[in-house]
Amino acid sequence: MALTNTQVRLASRPVGFPDEESFRITEEVVPEPKEGEVLVRNHYLSVDPYMRGRMNEGQSYAPAVAIGDVMVGGTAGEVIASKNPSFSVGDSVVGSFGWQEYGISDGRGLTKVDAKLPLSVYLGSVGMPGVTAYIGLFDIGEPKKGETVVVSAAAGAVGSVVGQLAKLSGCRAVGIAGGKKKCDYVVNELGFDACIDYRSPGFRDELRSAVPNGVDVSFENVGGPIMETVIGLLNDFARVPLCGLVSQYNETEGYAFKSLPVLLWKRVKLQGFIVSDRMERWPKALADLGSWVGEGKIRYRETVTEGITNATSAFLGMLRGENLGKQIVKLV
Amino acid sequence: MALTNTQVRLASRPVGFPDEESFRITEEVVPEPKEGEVLVRNHYLSVDPYMRGRMNEGQSYAPAVAIGDVMVGGTAGEVIASKNPSFSVGDSVVGSFGWQEYGISDGRGLTKVDAKLPLSVYLGSVGMPGVTAYIGLFDIGEPKKGETVVVSAAAGAVGSVVGQLAKLSGCRAVGIAGGKKKCDYVVNELGFDACIDYRSPGFRDELRSAVPNGVDVSFENVGGPIMETVIGLLNDFARVPLCGLVSQYNETEGYAFKSLPVLLWKRVKLQGFIVSDRMERWPKALADLGSWVGEGKIRYRETVTEGITNATSAFLGMLRGENLGKQIVKLV
Repeated sequence: MALTNTQVRLASRPVGFPDEESFRITEEVVPEPKEGEVLVRNHYLSVDPYMRGRMNEGQSYAPAVAIGDVMVGGTAGEVIASKNPSFSVGDSVVGSFGWQEYGISDGRGLTKVDAKLPLSVYLGSVGMPGVTAYIGLFDIGEPKKGETVVVSAAAGAVGSVVGQLAKLSGCRAVGIAGGKKKCDYVVNELGFDACIDYRSPGFRDELRSAVPNGVDVSFENVGGPIMETVIGLLNDFARVPLCGLVSQYNETEGYAFKSLPVLLWKRVKLQGFIVSDRMERWPKALADLGSWVGEGKIRYRETVTEGITNATSAFLGMLRGENLGKQIVKLV
Repeated sequence: MALTNTQVRLASRPVGFPDEESFRITEEVVPEPKEGEVLVRNHYLSVDPYMRGRMNEGQSYAPAVAIGDVMVGGTAGEVIASKNPSFSVGDSVVGSFGWQEYGISDGRGLTKVDAKLPLSVYLGSVGMPGVTAYIGLFDIGEPKKGETVVVSAAAGAVGSVVGQLAKLSGCRAVGIAGGKKKCDYVVNELGFDACIDYRSPGFRDELRSAVPNGVDVSFENVGGPIMETVIGLLNDFARVPLCGLVSQYNETEGYAFKSLPVLLWKRVKLQGFIVSDRMERWPKALADLGSWVGEGKIRYRETVTEGITNATSAFLGMLRGENLGKQIVKLV
């Protein structure tokens, strides 16, 4: 019996904030794998901020998704047919099949994962977002014991790991997030020293109070006025791993950043990075993160949306900051 | 017979562009050096962009000059009396006596220099500006053979050395300067591959044509729209040593920088630095720069203004970009 593969494709390039009209649902018959290929049933799809950039023509660090193509994205699933000797039916695998229920691969870009941890964690704390946190904090942020690390989007997939890694490094970890629920989660469950609600009228003063020794590392996920507030609290020789500017992705007018002189006076290092540039760091990062998650040293939560046809609403909700922890789409 | 020391003191804190009213000329009798002290007749005074920052209250990387104090600054001169066994009358010395004709020191911060090179060069290519170029380019810019280095204020004390060090490193060196005279000097005398006049209506296109392989290192002295134009031409993984923002020093409203997303997408490292943070690098830098200047591998010019009472006009002219090469005030 032929299987049906439901997919989400890019229908048009959004200007400003995208909506359901930017996407289109399609169905295809799942083909048989050819010699050397493997067929995977995707159990989980990851939706992440970077995907907004891929919806634009050019002007990002990765090729745009073509109109009509299946949206890109990380997936975790199970091999259901294999004509590739490296994979067996039943193997748990992580890949990049995008927003669809099935995927076929010649094995490149497909990684078998240990079944000790829940499969979805390989899309989060022990996957791309976790490695992003690991590389950005350790390689660019270079936190030293006793320093203060601030991270924006602290309740999100990357930010939640950043703060916990900062704690494991002997640092003071201060998060920034939207709303009391997220801030409570960040402090009470993840163990940050403090978390400040950027929607609070007293945000600037509250953040200042939370960093009595200033800020040595500002892990930047958000950009805009929140970023600029943290920049104002940086210590001399601070480091700013520039991971994302999610507050800007749906803006048509660029944010006017006024703090360049501060970067000079305080001799700050600000560095943009993308986790895929540093593939040589992944094995060590994944091994460490897997151990720490297994030992409970890194905790996480997921916001799970069910069904491929709801991937769009999961993605849009994530862009609006509605998720707590990693936003996942459960496909099976 | 008592000697008279003519001095220039800070009279008031300027708002926006300073003028003669910001300064005040004073005279003092030169005291006799006490036991352990040395008296120096300053022959040359250096005026540099950073001094504008010192005229402000706070908000810079170094303490402000107090109202009524002698303006800070590097000086080169000759020992004329010594009660310090480390110094003899006739020694050529470099120090930081500020805007005045004489200085007394206990020896700290005073360096004897080789008389092989002209004394004034120790305030320029073999002094603070040269070391600034050396550290910023080599330690932060990390130029690799075959890469393209762009430097703003290319005809100035720092920029002129940056481009020549880039050439010595096997890079393509492209300067940015104001006007044809400076650009001709940068190309014909200093040996840059190209120099673009930022006042030209076709500046952006001319710069683009001058960097056919993009920009790998942008040594930033100026800030503002010129900086942003270069940022638009950066290659992936480019480095931006942030040395100065001279276009902004006299602005009361901060420049609105729109290019943060480019730093993310292109994974750029932007790092502010101050030469005095890296004192451990000075001996090697000065030795290298001294050799290269002696061998003619690094060339320089000076704009010389005569007399301590003209230090103010030399400084203001330098802020307006009227100098070619190092702006020096000759005191003897």
